[in-house]
Amino acid sequence: MKTSAYAALRCDTPLEPFSFDRRAPRANDIVMEVLYSGICHSDLHQARNDWGWSQYPIVPGHEIVGRVIEIGSDVTTYKVGDHVAVGCMVDSCMSCDQCRKGEEQLCRVGNTQTYNSPDRITGDITRGGYSKQLVVREEFALRLPEGMDLSRAAPLLCAGITTYSPLRTWNVGPGSKVGVIGLGGLGHMAVKLAVGLGADVTVISRSADKEADARALGADHFLVSSDAGAMAAAANRFELIIDTVPVKHDITPYTWLLDVDATLVLVGQVGPLDEASTVPLLMGRRRVAGSPIGGIAETQEMLDFCAKKGILPDCEMIRMDEINAAFERMERADVRYRFVIDMASLPAAA
Amino acid sequence: MKTSAYAALRCDTPLEPFSFDRRAPRANDIVMEVLYSGICHSDLHQARNDWGWSQYPIVPGHEIVGRVIEIGSDVTTYKVGDHVAVGCMVDSCMSCDQCRKGEEQLCRVGNTQTYNSPDRITGDITRGGYSKQLVVREEFALRLPEGMDLSRAAPLLCAGITTYSPLRTWNVGPGSKVGVIGLGGLGHMAVKLAVGLGADVTVISRSADKEADARALGADHFLVSSDAGAMAAAANRFELIIDTVPVKHDITPYTWLLDVDATLVLVGQVGPLDEASTVPLLMGRRRVAGSPIGGIAETQEMLDFCAKKGILPDCEMIRMDEINAAFERMERADVRYRFVIDMASLPAAA
Repeated sequence: MKTSAYAALRCDTPLEPFSFDRRAPRANDIVMEVLYSGICHSDLHQARNDWGWSQYPIVPGHEIVGRVIEIGSDVTTYKVGDHVAVGCMVDSCMSCDQCRKGEEQLCRVGNTQTYNSPDRITGDITRGGYSKQLVVREEFALRLPEGMDLSRAAPLLCAGITTYSPLRTWNVGPGSKVGVIGLGGLGHMAVKLAVGLGADVTVISRSADKEADARALGADHFLVSSDAGAMAAAANRFELIIDTVPVKHDITPYTWLLDVDATLVLVGQVGPLDEASTVPLLMGRRRVAGSPIGGIAETQEMLDFCAKKGILPDCEMIRMDEINAAFERMERADVRYRFVIDMASLPAAA
Repeated sequence: MKTSAYAALRCDTPLEPFSFDRRAPRANDIVMEVLYSGICHSDLHQARNDWGWSQYPIVPGHEIVGRVIEIGSDVTTYKVGDHVAVGCMVDSCMSCDQCRKGEEQLCRVGNTQTYNSPDRITGDITRGGYSKQLVVREEFALRLPEGMDLSRAAPLLCAGITTYSPLRTWNVGPGSKVGVIGLGGLGHMAVKLAVGLGADVTVISRSADKEADARALGADHFLVSSDAGAMAAAANRFELIIDTVPVKHDITPYTWLLDVDATLVLVGQVGPLDEASTVPLLMGRRRVAGSPIGGIAETQEMLDFCAKKGILPDCEMIRMDEINAAFERMERADVRYRFVIDMASLPAAA
């Protein structure tokens, strides 16, 4: 099936209109019409080959909301007309220990990413949600809860689950003292989700500029990391810190804020950190970890939790042909807090 | 009471004979004659003020084995003639949440270190085990199990507990896959203790030179970290890695060896690490932590465990007046695996 899309043809050119053939649905596939696509910072990284593993043409997009328009012969979970979503993965081995316990994001063989990843059957490079249609095996589609605002749901599929999963892994609940570093796409979801779980939430930011925004998102406290006195007073305060900073940085000042046995979880930066001191780790048996998205079952749990709690990302809607301007604004952190593409703005393939 | 000792009078002079007054025992103190003192690399660091917090004169020594020669009026746990030991701490607040659960090493107010630390009552700087007598409150003394070889027990008080505590915190038991990086004083104890707990133990070392030593200590496997193929084949292998490397280094190649949700525990380096990549952390929800010695109850448990399993450090006995040569040899890693000072070689104070 011919589908229209936007693609990066090379690392140094803007995204441009592109069309290609989606595979005919296999027996366990659903075909969805893409209604909304969220824009993640990693889309920009991969369009530009910042991580060195891009295969062109790249059709980005892994925060995808749509409607089922066709189902394979064996599909039982979804029917035509259902509202569904797809996140960062479209397949995994489904048989290793991690897949069997619902942690497909940690599949031993490696999961198949929604774009820029070889299909497990054909080897073709997958293409993502900046396109009119998507074909995906039913096990990797999520059900959008009844009544959820579809136009704002897309960022839950990456920014949402990436911050929800560590909150659940590290058992955040009522009264948990949670810090969130950075207030972008991931950070603002971390605040909303932690507040939704009943935690006592502090936004940690380099300057006082974002305090009003943080409080508007539901944060209980605001800590300015450049204020040495405030940082010292906050030593040992947090049971969990979610670090959403998407660039190389020094985690040392933040690790002092952890309580004994508490953890700072990195979810933003993919690559090197600055030299870090072991002293706060040694002195408080403190911990640093990374966390990647979440499993399919946990993603569904997150969507249902958001529906129940009325949690949605703050989005700015754009047209498909505004994508390059959106990338530029995202680089300047000029977005509150996530761009979503209205895919109705993309004409169907001729 | 006048006691003879060896002290560093300045950061740039060798240790030399020194005498000073130990406090008269308080009601809850015991007085011990020091029989053996282990030499820890941190003794050298503090003698030379490598960490910037040394207060001279410094009498090092926090791996201390001795015999009770006097007790305070309220002491009930020990009697004159008992064989006892003292490790890195001689006091703590005893009332915070950490102390109440037996984690005095994580005392909220800060524990009192055995040397170079202000006494909680007088403010005098504590002086350690390179001395003929020691005065310590009974709660911070350990009982040496009946029949344990006193001449080899001292290093258990720091090298032993520092490696035993993370093995217990991270639930190492029969069949656990444990890696140990570095084969010095801490590393060789980590191997013996992990083997004693029934783990499947791999020593990870830069070159193949230490394989025979590692196997002699009981290691089941040996992994050469400079062998890229062997390292790749060992990816995801370990449930716990104890990193005893005492200098700045890059943990990234080792974090790839961790299984999903597994932890690399730093116990050697006090200070900066090289820039580390977040990628292995993110991709496997892997973790890095630090761990400081252990609590008093856990230290006693470790001593009893070592007695039961026949575990003792490999020691080289020296005389007190050989201390500066021993420091030099330790700097060249020329010791298998821990120096112990026979304190009978130190004349009593005149």
